[in-house]
Amino acid sequence: MFAEILTIGDELTRGEIVDTNRSWLAQQLWDLDVTVRWMTSCRDDADDLRRAVTTAAGRADLVVCSGGLGPTEDDLTVDVVAEAVGAIPEIDPASRARLELFLGARGAPMTEIQLRQVRVPGGARVHPNGAGLAPGFEVEVGGVPVVCLPGFPREIHAIWDGGLGARLRALREARGGAPRIARRVFRVFGRGESQISQACRGVVDDVPGATIHYQVKFPETLVKIVVKDPDADAARARLDDIDAALRGRLGPHLYGTGDAALPEVVAAALRQARLTVGTAESCTGGMIAQLLTSVPGSSAFVVGGVVVYANAQKEALLGVSPATLAAHGAVSEACVREMAAGARRRLGVDLAVAVSGIAGPDGGTPDKPVGTVWLALARGDGDDHIDTKLLTWPGARDMVRTLASWWALRMILDAAGGPRG
Amino acid sequence: MFAEILTIGDELTRGEIVDTNRSWLAQQLWDLDVTVRWMTSCRDDADDLRRAVTTAAGRADLVVCSGGLGPTEDDLTVDVVAEAVGAIPEIDPASRARLELFLGARGAPMTEIQLRQVRVPGGARVHPNGAGLAPGFEVEVGGVPVVCLPGFPREIHAIWDGGLGARLRALREARGGAPRIARRVFRVFGRGESQISQACRGVVDDVPGATIHYQVKFPETLVKIVVKDPDADAARARLDDIDAALRGRLGPHLYGTGDAALPEVVAAALRQARLTVGTAESCTGGMIAQLLTSVPGSSAFVVGGVVVYANAQKEALLGVSPATLAAHGAVSEACVREMAAGARRRLGVDLAVAVSGIAGPDGGTPDKPVGTVWLALARGDGDDHIDTKLLTWPGARDMVRTLASWWALRMILDAAGGPRG
Repeated sequence: MFAEILTIGDELTRGEIVDTNRSWLAQQLWDLDVTVRWMTSCRDDADDLRRAVTTAAGRADLVVCSGGLGPTEDDLTVDVVAEAVGAIPEIDPASRARLELFLGARGAPMTEIQLRQVRVPGGARVHPNGAGLAPGFEVEVGGVPVVCLPGFPREIHAIWDGGLGARLRALREARGGAPRIARRVFRVFGRGESQISQACRGVVDDVPGATIHYQVKFPETLVKIVVKDPDADAARARLDDIDAALRGRLGPHLYGTGDAALPEVVAAALRQARLTVGTAESCTGGMIAQLLTSVPGSSAFVVGGVVVYANAQKEALLGVSPATLAAHGAVSEACVREMAAGARRRLGVDLAVAVSGIAGPDGGTPDKPVGTVWLALARGDGDDHIDTKLLTWPGARDMVRTLASWWALRMILDAAGGPRG
Repeated sequence: MFAEILTIGDELTRGEIVDTNRSWLAQQLWDLDVTVRWMTSCRDDADDLRRAVTTAAGRADLVVCSGGLGPTEDDLTVDVVAEAVGAIPEIDPASRARLELFLGARGAPMTEIQLRQVRVPGGARVHPNGAGLAPGFEVEVGGVPVVCLPGFPREIHAIWDGGLGARLRALREARGGAPRIARRVFRVFGRGESQISQACRGVVDDVPGATIHYQVKFPETLVKIVVKDPDADAARARLDDIDAALRGRLGPHLYGTGDAALPEVVAAALRQARLTVGTAESCTGGMIAQLLTSVPGSSAFVVGGVVVYANAQKEALLGVSPATLAAHGAVSEACVREMAAGARRRLGVDLAVAVSGIAGPDGGTPDKPVGTVWLALARGDGDDHIDTKLLTWPGARDMVRTLASWWALRMILDAAGGPRG
C-alpha cells in the first residue's frame, strides 16, 4: 500500500518553516506497513492544490494532507477538496459546538470567518480535533482515501491518537496481506555511525522479514529493528533473538531502548539508586545541569551545580588549587579531579561530575587543540573514587559542548549502576 | 520564474530525518526572486526518481535536487539524470583529484565504489563541492535547468557559496524582469505573534513592492520585510522607511535585526559596556549560563554561575536567608532578590541575574501555578539596584524554561545599555 503525503502552505514553499509534519506522518504510516512513496508540498493556491490532490490520488493508494484548514482566506483545502469530489462545504455540527464553547469562554462573538474553519466537504468522514478548532476529514477521490488534517503538529497528533491512526490501520488491513510488525529502537552513544553499522553488520541477514535502519541524532545514533510476519508472536520472537545479538555487539555503548533519551535514563538510574548529583562545568557552561534538570521531577536528585568559567571561580567556588592551575592549566586531568572533588564536597552530593575543555572556535593550542575536554566523576565518601576521561574530538563549538555533556551524563549513569528497567 | 525542489532518499520518505535542505534551498531561491511552487520527495528508487525529475522539469522553470550522489548502490541520481538527458556518466577529473588527495591522506586505496561519487552526466556543468567529495552538477531536461546537489547540508551550502548561488541569480536575471530585492529581518521578543502582527498591521500596505512575513521561532518572532523594485536604491529607500515605522511600532520588543539572536546581541552589549555577568538559576537549571556561553569568546564576560536547585544550596552558595525562604518560599520576589545580590557579590560580577520558578509539569499550587517565574537582576556596587520581573505563562516545561531564560537575557541586555551596533 503506497501513500503520498501532501503538505500545504506558502510558509513551506518559501522555506520559512521546516516541515516536521510530513516526517512525523511518514513515521506513523511506515509503522502501519504503509510505504510513503511521494511527499509533496505546494503553495496556498487553489489551482496548485487541486493539481496536487489529483496527482496524488492518481498515483497513491492513500493521500494524507496537512494544512490549509484554518479560518482565513488563505485556507483553501476544504473548498478545493469539496470541489474535487463534487460536494459542497458544510458546517460540522460537533466542531461548531466546540467552537461556540471556545468563543463563549472568551466572550468573543461567532463570526462568518470563525465558522469557515469548522466546515468539511458534505458527506466526508469527520476526524474530530481534540486539540484545536478545525476538524480533520476524509473523502474519496477516484476511489482513493484522501485525509485532510490541520497544520499544527499537536492537533495532528491529537487527531491521530483520537481515531485516525486506528482508521488507517483498518484501511491497511482491509487490503489484506498486512503483516504484524514488531519493532524496537536501540539507543547508542559513544560510537560513530560507521562503527555502529560495522558492529551491526549482518545481524538481520538470516532473519526473515527483518530490516535494520540507522538514524543519527547527534550525539547519539538510533538503531531501529523491524520484523514483519503474518503472525505477531513469530515477529516478536525474532525481534527478541535480534535484540540479544545486538546487545552483545553494541556492548556498553547501548544505553537504552525506546523513547527515553540519555537524560531520562540517567534520571531513572539516579532515582533507583537513591543518589544525588551535582555539576561543575567550565566549557559546557551549564549544559550538563540543563540536561539533568530538563527531566520533570529532577529536583529529587539534582542538588545544584556551578559554572566556573573563570579560573578565579574554579578556586573560589570549588577549591581548585592555584598551584594545579599554574602547573597543568584549567584543561587538565589534575584540574577536573579537583573540580569534581570540590563540587562533591561543597554541594554535599553523592556524585559530582566536572568538565573542563576547549570548545572553540578559538583557544586551541598544539598541545590542547579545540575539542580537548577532560571529564571527572567523583563518588563515595572520600576523594579516592574519581574516574576521569579525555575527549579529543574536533568539531564545531556546540557539538563539542553537546558531546562533552553527554559523556558527563554517561559517566553519571555508570556511577549510578548503569541503565535500569 | 517557478522552481521545484526535489529531495531524494528513503530516510526522508520513512520519516527518519526532518528535511532541512528543502527549506534552506527554498529560502535562497526566494531571495533570488524565484518562486518555489512545488517541493517533492521520493525514495531511492530509479523509476520513482525518473518520474519525479520528468514531472518537475515539465512544470517548473528550474529544478533543484538534493541527495543520491554518494558512492553506494542506493545513490542513483547521476545514472537516472544521465539517462534522462541521453548522456553517459563520466568521471569529473577535478573531483577525482580531490578524492585521491583525500584517500591518500588516509592511506586508503582508490576503489571502483569510491569513484562512483565523482561521476557526473557527460556534458554537465560541474558545481565543485568545497566541503565534500561528490560534486554538484547541472543539466538541461527539456530545456529546463536541473541542478543536482548532495544531501549533506554543509556541502549544499559550500556549493551554493562557491558559485551555484551566483549561477542561479544569473539564470533568473537572464529571464528579465528580475527586481532588485531589499530585505531585513527584525527580531522581536516579549510579545506573541498575534500581538506583533497586530502592531505591524498595514505597515507595508501603501508601499509598492513591499511584503511582510512572520516566522515564529519560540520564544521569539522574526518579522521579515521584503521590498522589490527594478531599482536597487528605490527598494532600499522604501525598506528604510518601513524600518523607521516598524521600530516605532515594535518599541523595546524589537531587540535586533539580522542573523544575531538574543545571546549574541547580549554578548555584544556586554563586551561594549565592558561588563561581566554571573547567573543564579533554579528552575532554568543552567540554561541561562548555557545560552550565554554558547557565544564564542564568552569567557570575556561570563565569570560563572550557580545552579541552586535545592533550597539548602540557595542558602549555602548564595546566602539566601532561611527566614526569607520560610516566609515567602523559593519562588518569590524576596528570594530572587537575595539570589541576585548574593550571586553578584560572591561571583564578583557587574551584573547578576537570578531565576526561581515552577517549570512543571508538577509543583504548581493555586497561588503559584506552573509557569510562575520570578527573575531579578542585580547591578552596581550596592545591593540597591535590583530589578525584578514576574512571569506567569503556563506552558510545557521546556517552554517555560526557555522563556524564562530569554527574559533573563533580556534583563541583562537592558542593564548593559540595550542593543548595540
